Amino acid sequence: VAEPLVYLNGNFLPASQAHIAIYDAGFVQGATVTEQTRTFHRRPYRPENHLNRFFRALHYTGIDIGLSHEDLSQIGEKLIEHNAALLDPGDELGLIYFATPGEYRTYSPRPARTTPTVCVHTFVLPFELWAAKMQNGTHLVTPSIRHVPPQCVDPNIKCRSRMQFYLAEREAKLADPDASALLLDLEAHIAETNAANFLMCAGGTLFSPTTRNTLPGISRATVIELAADLGIPFVGRDISVFDALEAAEAFLSSTPFCLMPVTRINDRPIADGKPGPVYRRLLSAWSRRVGLDIEKQVIDGAARRSAAKGPNATGKTTA
Amino acid sequence: VAEPLVYLNGNFLPASQAHIAIYDAGFVQGATVTEQTRTFHRRPYRPENHLNRFFRALHYTGIDIGLSHEDLSQIGEKLIEHNAALLDPGDELGLIYFATPGEYRTYSPRPARTTPTVCVHTFVLPFELWAAKMQNGTHLVTPSIRHVPPQCVDPNIKCRSRMQFYLAEREAKLADPDASALLLDLEAHIAETNAANFLMCAGGTLFSPTTRNTLPGISRATVIELAADLGIPFVGRDISVFDALEAAEAFLSSTPFCLMPVTRINDRPIADGKPGPVYRRLLSAWSRRVGLDIEKQVIDGAARRSAAKGPNATGKTTA
Amino acid sequence: VAEPLVYLNGNFLPASQAHIAIYDAGFVQGATVTEQTRTFHRRPYRPENHLNRFFRALHYTGIDIGLSHEDLSQIGEKLIEHNAALLDPGDELGLIYFATPGEYRTYSPRPARTTPTVCVHTFVLPFELWAAKMQNGTHLVTPSIRHVPPQCVDPNIKCRSRMQFYLAEREAKLADPDASALLLDLEAHIAETNAANFLMCAGGTLFSPTTRNTLPGISRATVIELAADLGIPFVGRDISVFDALEAAEAFLSSTPFCLMPVTRINDRPIADGKPGPVYRRLLSAWSRRVGLDIEKQVIDGAARRSAAKGPNATGKTTA
Amino acid sequence: VAEPLVYLNGNFLPASQAHIAIYDAGFVQGATVTEQTRTFHRRPYRPENHLNRFFRALHYTGIDIGLSHEDLSQIGEKLIEHNAALLDPGDELGLIYFATPGEYRTYSPRPARTTPTVCVHTFVLPFELWAAKMQNGTHLVTPSIRHVPPQCVDPNIKCRSRMQFYLAEREAKLADPDASALLLDLEAHIAETNAANFLMCAGGTLFSPTTRNTLPGISRATVIELAADLGIPFVGRDISVFDALEAAEAFLSSTPFCLMPVTRINDRPIADGKPGPVYRRLLSAWSRRVGLDIEKQVIDGAARRSAAKGPNATGKTTA
Amino acid sequence: VAEPLVYLNGNFLPASQAHIAIYDAGFVQGATVTEQTRTFHRRPYRPENHLNRFFRALHYTGIDIGLSHEDLSQIGEKLIEHNAALLDPGDELGLIYFATPGEYRTYSPRPARTTPTVCVHTFVLPFELWAAKMQNGTHLVTPSIRHVPPQCVDPNIKCRSRMQFYLAEREAKLADPDASALLLDLEAHIAETNAANFLMCAGGTLFSPTTRNTLPGISRATVIELAADLGIPFVGRDISVFDALEAAEAFLSSTPFCLMPVTRINDRPIADGKPGPVYRRLLSAWSRRVGLDIEKQVIDGAARRSAAKGPNATGKTTA
Amino acid sequence: VAEPLVYLNGNFLPASQAHIAIYDAGFVQGATVTEQTRTFHRRPYRPENHLNRFFRALHYTGIDIGLSHEDLSQIGEKLIEHNAALLDPGDELGLIYFATPGEYRTYSPRPARTTPTVCVHTFVLPFELWAAKMQNGTHLVTPSIRHVPPQCVDPNIKCRSRMQFYLAEREAKLADPDASALLLDLEAHIAETNAANFLMCAGGTLFSPTTRNTLPGISRATVIELAADLGIPFVGRDISVFDALEAAEAFLSSTPFCLMPVTRINDRPIADGKPGPVYRRLLSAWSRRVGLDIEKQVIDGAARRSAAKGPNATGKTTA
Repeated sequence: VAEPLVYLNGNFLPASQAHIAIYDAGFVQGATVTEQTRTFHRRPYRPENHLNRFFRALHYTGIDIGLSHEDLSQIGEKLIEHNAALLDPGDELGLIYFATPGEYRTYSPRPARTTPTVCVHTFVLPFELWAAKMQNGTHLVTPSIRHVPPQCVDPNIKCRSRMQFYLAEREAKLADPDASALLLDLEAHIAETNAANFLMCAGGTLFSPTTRNTLPGISRATVIELAADLGIPFVGRDISVFDALEAAEAFLSSTPFCLMPVTRINDRPIADGKPGPVYRRLLSAWSRRVGLDIEKQVIDGAARRSAAKGPNATGKTTA
Repeated sequence: VAEPLVYLNGNFLPASQAHIAIYDAGFVQGATVTEQTRTFHRRPYRPENHLNRFFRALHYTGIDIGLSHEDLSQIGEKLIEHNAALLDPGDELGLIYFATPGEYRTYSPRPARTTPTVCVHTFVLPFELWAAKMQNGTHLVTPSIRHVPPQCVDPNIKCRSRMQFYLAEREAKLADPDASALLLDLEAHIAETNAANFLMCAGGTLFSPTTRNTLPGISRATVIELAADLGIPFVGRDISVFDALEAAEAFLSSTPFCLMPVTRINDRPIADGKPGPVYRRLLSAWSRRVGLDIEKQVIDGAARRSAAKGPNATGKTTA
Repeated sequence: VAEPLVYLNGNFLPASQAHIAIYDAGFVQGATVTEQTRTFHRRPYRPENHLNRFFRALHYTGIDIGLSHEDLSQIGEKLIEHNAALLDPGDELGLIYFATPGEYRTYSPRPARTTPTVCVHTFVLPFELWAAKMQNGTHLVTPSIRHVPPQCVDPNIKCRSRMQFYLAEREAKLADPDASALLLDLEAHIAETNAANFLMCAGGTLFSPTTRNTLPGISRATVIELAADLGIPFVGRDISVFDALEAAEAFLSSTPFCLMPVTRINDRPIADGKPGPVYRRLLSAWSRRVGLDIEKQVIDGAARRSAAKGPNATGKTTA
Repeated sequence: VAEPLVYLNGNFLPASQAHIAIYDAGFVQGATVTEQTRTFHRRPYRPENHLNRFFRALHYTGIDIGLSHEDLSQIGEKLIEHNAALLDPGDELGLIYFATPGEYRTYSPRPARTTPTVCVHTFVLPFELWAAKMQNGTHLVTPSIRHVPPQCVDPNIKCRSRMQFYLAEREAKLADPDASALLLDLEAHIAETNAANFLMCAGGTLFSPTTRNTLPGISRATVIELAADLGIPFVGRDISVFDALEAAEAFLSSTPFCLMPVTRINDRPIADGKPGPVYRRLLSAWSRRVGLDIEKQVIDGAARRSAAKGPNATGKTTA
Repeated sequence: VAEPLVYLNGNFLPASQAHIAIYDAGFVQGATVTEQTRTFHRRPYRPENHLNRFFRALHYTGIDIGLSHEDLSQIGEKLIEHNAALLDPGDELGLIYFATPGEYRTYSPRPARTTPTVCVHTFVLPFELWAAKMQNGTHLVTPSIRHVPPQCVDPNIKCRSRMQFYLAEREAKLADPDASALLLDLEAHIAETNAANFLMCAGGTLFSPTTRNTLPGISRATVIELAADLGIPFVGRDISVFDALEAAEAFLSSTPFCLMPVTRINDRPIADGKPGPVYRRLLSAWSRRVGLDIEKQVIDGAARRSAAKGPNATGKTTA
Repeated sequence: VAEPLVYLNGNFLPASQAHIAIYDAGFVQGATVTEQTRTFHRRPYRPENHLNRFFRALHYTGIDIGLSHEDLSQIGEKLIEHNAALLDPGDELGLIYFATPGEYRTYSPRPARTTPTVCVHTFVLPFELWAAKMQNGTHLVTPSIRHVPPQCVDPNIKCRSRMQFYLAEREAKLADPDASALLLDLEAHIAETNAANFLMCAGGTLFSPTTRNTLPGISRATVIELAADLGIPFVGRDISVFDALEAAEAFLSSTPFCLMPVTRINDRPIADGKPGPVYRRLLSAWSRRVGLDIEKQVIDGAARRSAAKGPNATGKTTA
């Protein structure tokens, strides 16, 4: 059977042969820098923005991968070309880049590869996980665990040292297995979920936390651009749970699913507890920009898989 | 050529075949719990203490590995038996356990293994990295990066979500390539280095940071026991850089190297800038307890490797 | 029908006539200082300790109630004498003192009473709320809401400005309607629940948070004394959720119910998830001290009420 | 004699019969949500804004009072109609709404009312307390007590859990019995007084703390609107005591008195220590908007009461 | 007329000729390290302890004064010998050491002296400022200004970068011109006054803040020793204003005046508001140790000066 | 030989006779308020702005120097007139004002001068220290020492209580003797260096920290004005090290040297690691404004001095 390809340290490998050493520093210490984009119509979305952010984080952390922006761009193109051909019709790909400082020599049977580990790989967008939430809204719960502050690790670095996300999700799932954790910072301002930025709309203005405590998502940037096109001003500022609960609408933005309405926080409804008109307008504008109906693609994709799996299939994630 | 064995998810594999999927949650999110012991005379040192701590962290994080304390103990025994046989005379092994929540299903070509990833492996203790520092003392530098506070990730969990360690080391190396970073907590108290606990001796008493901001190392516990045997009282309390600089002696404790004198912080000497008598007494007591001269083993081992490598060999680590 | 009496501002009134003005400063601003004891065999338990703490808080807040320790003691005696006579056999009383700065003149139809409001009243101990939890243990959940820090209101003042408790309980109930909120302080150390102190037992020692972030409960003091009698040393120190989860046992102490085992935190079991031997020893010692079986009194009382209410009665609290 | 009416839990009662149970949760825990407006010419000022904020806080705290915005509006109208008829000519009313979660069942002789307590009542505006300060300016003193941070209770909730205000006022009165406490937040930024928002004017711009650490007062919103009408831009930002002391003017805004000049902080004058032109312009604009001279009404009212009380009357508040 | 001598940069000068350049780094940046002792019977008290602390601070700050402990000791002896001869009978000297990094070259007409500035000088102990407070107790007021935290400047360094003390004193004097500021740390624990350590006695134990937030005064160490001699145990721990107000006694320790009772904080009395028995026992023990009645010396000295100055003399300090 | 004059406490003295008493409160406690300007063509630059800021700080600290803005202005004029005449051609002056609360009476041989100490003096701008850095850019290193927070001393007060600067510089010099310390605040936002404001340019906008954690420099204000003239918008906001490293350009502004490019932070380059076009445009605009080429003046001045000193001269600073 044909397999997706993975780029790893200079080679294009079948996915089943792509793995990292148990003594890779990215695994031993979480010192992995990562980035992610997705396809629309099987073309990568804003890869240049994502690669720019990837290189900024590599620069800050001092990991020199020995590849240029152009190199990574071509690798991504090649992977999408090959891997998209394996997809069911209607499916799309996520595209992930990551780099680590290389192997941790002390743990390795010598000689270790001490140049950075670089990988690019794809995954099939899991529409089945999003369909219900895009239609009805999602529920966020604030855990007692706080987001790591910039004194320790700058939230602008998309890294994989995220135990706080894992612990926070566990707490949030106690309150609702379908909820996601909305992490607060040490001052109790809303930061982000483990996979998405938080935005809200109040008094006709779009708000989102600043980059002081949150990753400046490319999808968040897209939302801000779309809002500007629709005449909706944007302001970045500290947002409390109180502010969010009193908003007219709230949503999450994330590269894989684009935009998802938030309709409850800590089991309190936002406005009437249903996805609102700004969400719909923004998602429509985004759909127009990429030439496909984003929500419909998700719903159709979820239905298709549900049918394929039969009556016992569920959309639960595991990790 | 014979290879060390690695235990991974139920199998004993040659080290060259032991790797984790690039979509393992331990790698994707840093949600890896780990633990480490070492051998003396090729017998594991206090494995029960290390396994107890490993199971405590698994309990807190809710990762159920489906193996008992006894199971892991036997796996470790088996690995040591096999792998120690491959060692040069005079060498010893480090023994590492780690577990992750399993594979991150979304990224994985289905079906993913969603039960926890469990691994036990060994490495050769790098005596060559320690010999000079054990004889002359090491230099610690306080970086601007702070240790992650317990509001986010409890420092008692030995996990692999440690980007702060990576960033801190980079800063410390600017001041001195041979120095290690001494991370401070948000209140500027001494926490730990990326691999060791900090202890100091002042007025005849042994002090170390409390478990509020530092991992309660098993080696630190050993030092406290040895000190008690020598009639040296121990007090756990917040320690500032000022306190440390005015101490009579300071040292690091860590499973692989046991004890190492700290003779300078931020280029200021501690006392006369040389390893002190309490260090020597503690290390001697530890040597008696394990039936070998710990410092001599390190120095001899380093010399042996240096000879083997020839005149151009260096002891520099890479990651 | 005979009614319990309430002491209010110099008068002994039937409970149904005891109320405070809507413009009392204790209600307008939460500036109410309070204290609480209970009876065993219908005699007040350690009233002198509780009154001492009450007067300390009045002193700190500068509320001069114009009554002496002896006066309040006699008022309490009189209320217990009268009100206990109305109890079902087997029941006991809680006894509450509170004082406020008096009426807030601006809001009041003149002339306002501007001397402090002072009240002493009783309530029937709600055994039905405790029986199951004393036998099987209770579940604590850490909310995102933090305890008010001493920079704002010293936790040593038992006051009624506790909106944080109300908000925290709401969050904890999302995870489990039978759980109570375990509030953390701003540094993520365990503080207290809205009605009880937290204690735990580890390595043969009893631990509890210090008075830095928690009310120094009289029942907590009793537990410490009982532990000393049983040869169990006590140490006050900062405690993390990690520490608590790795304890051998944990419990809550509170004036009304004395001692209650904590068997789960955030749905993780403590030890084997059952009430432990130290809990039983401490409660037995306490029972001996007061001359009745505290747990049995609760269980019998709960059963009695359940029988009286019939099959549909439930023990749910409302506020 | 005719008495003002109070709305309480469905009934309109004479003020002398309006009181709450000593076991009401609003009193037992400070879990009271409140709101306040006032009349001009005996018509309520912006009641819709105040009721909106009241319902937002009820929503956040999850207190469902079972009454609509319209219901509360009509209750307020009815109270004003009745109670204003009892006023001396020239007087005006304050109108207060509050709600609590209901009675605390454990403390209550059963059966307790467990639906929320809802009350609406009025009070006569105390012009005599404001006259001198509106003419000459008021003095603010920064106490050591800090405002409760949003990690604990969001400052956007106008609640009655405000012991910090009580304690802060006591400290400020030590420095000057006529001063009010200007509470700082944990970072030492100006928050608010116990009854008013802080605003200042510098370089032709109006500034006020953001809603991060302060209640977004309706009167503060009015000031911002009036300023816009006068061509004075407004910026919400963190303000230090240093900033305030170097401002051209500072003032307090509050529903009952509208606007009051601040002329000294910690006994240092602001500018020349006298009420300034922006204050006068804003108050004139506000007076025009409501159709009466706000300052004159206060001064005349204070004089009238002083005359009525005779030579020994004083305007000191008690609580 | 004979003048006291001052040691400055290698020379013994008449006091009137001892001054520092306006471009000395100690003045330009507050980078001055200092230390202070006093005489009893015109012999220096524990000079070795004070010099040890002085050298510890010089070590931490990296200022190498080129003089030994013995050198400074002899300089102090010489100054005391000469300057004490100029005293009125019954008077004693304070002895001050300070050092700075030297002159700030940029500001200086070249060539600047870039070796450290070192000075030792004396002053007459101002008994007249202490007499009333030693007899009746002093009043402390907590200002809004906080002590500088160890993240910035370690409180163990006795340095002259103390603007916070100056600002705090101004605030405290607003509440009471005779009060001193009791600075709190960022967590609202008691730190110290601008010139003294805080200690208190409760339940038969002596308490004082730890060296985490306060200078470990030599006089504080003396008090701890004296307490041990008297069988009073000592515990260093965080102390709140609440704790202090509920203490049996409180006092300040400082090199010049030894011990002074604190009888009020924020205008609330401690116990009965009078100096207590532990204060008297400690001061007596101290007096025995130094062979003179410390309190009597102060009172007599104050009376002597008052008589000398005539009816208009006052004991007010200026800066 | 002719000497520069210094104004000190009412007198104009030769520089060699200008010094302060060792018991001046500005030296004893760091309670010195200061301000600084410089000349261009030997005329003071914006003296009115600097004097305004000086008087604001004097107002806040309550130091009344008894001189008017006009008085100080004339003193400055007089000093420049006299002292500039002594300069080499091509040199310029820095002009410093400072004031302290006066002499600390207790330490002073009586009678002390208890009115404020006021001084105005000049220094020759040290072009030789800046020439290389203005051409190639400077290196900033973030130390572990944090800037003093506004809870303690407001950063808007240009005072001389700056031990944190001294300690921070020592740490930064460990990493690079030519680097300056870039102090972070307690939240890890960039504050300032010990002598300059930090600014950066990203996406065509100029950014700088707000006055919340940094001194609002007059030169920073000049840069903002110049940027506005060039059509470059300015935004004050919190800036992280990550933000700075990803900027297009960064620079320092300071009164003596105006503007200096920052090309590396913690040894990571900013952009291509060379001074950028915005720096050049801003410095050119500034040069036009003051009628001389600022960079050329520095380079020529440095060369002139180097020539004068001969082959062994170095430009190293000492303190």
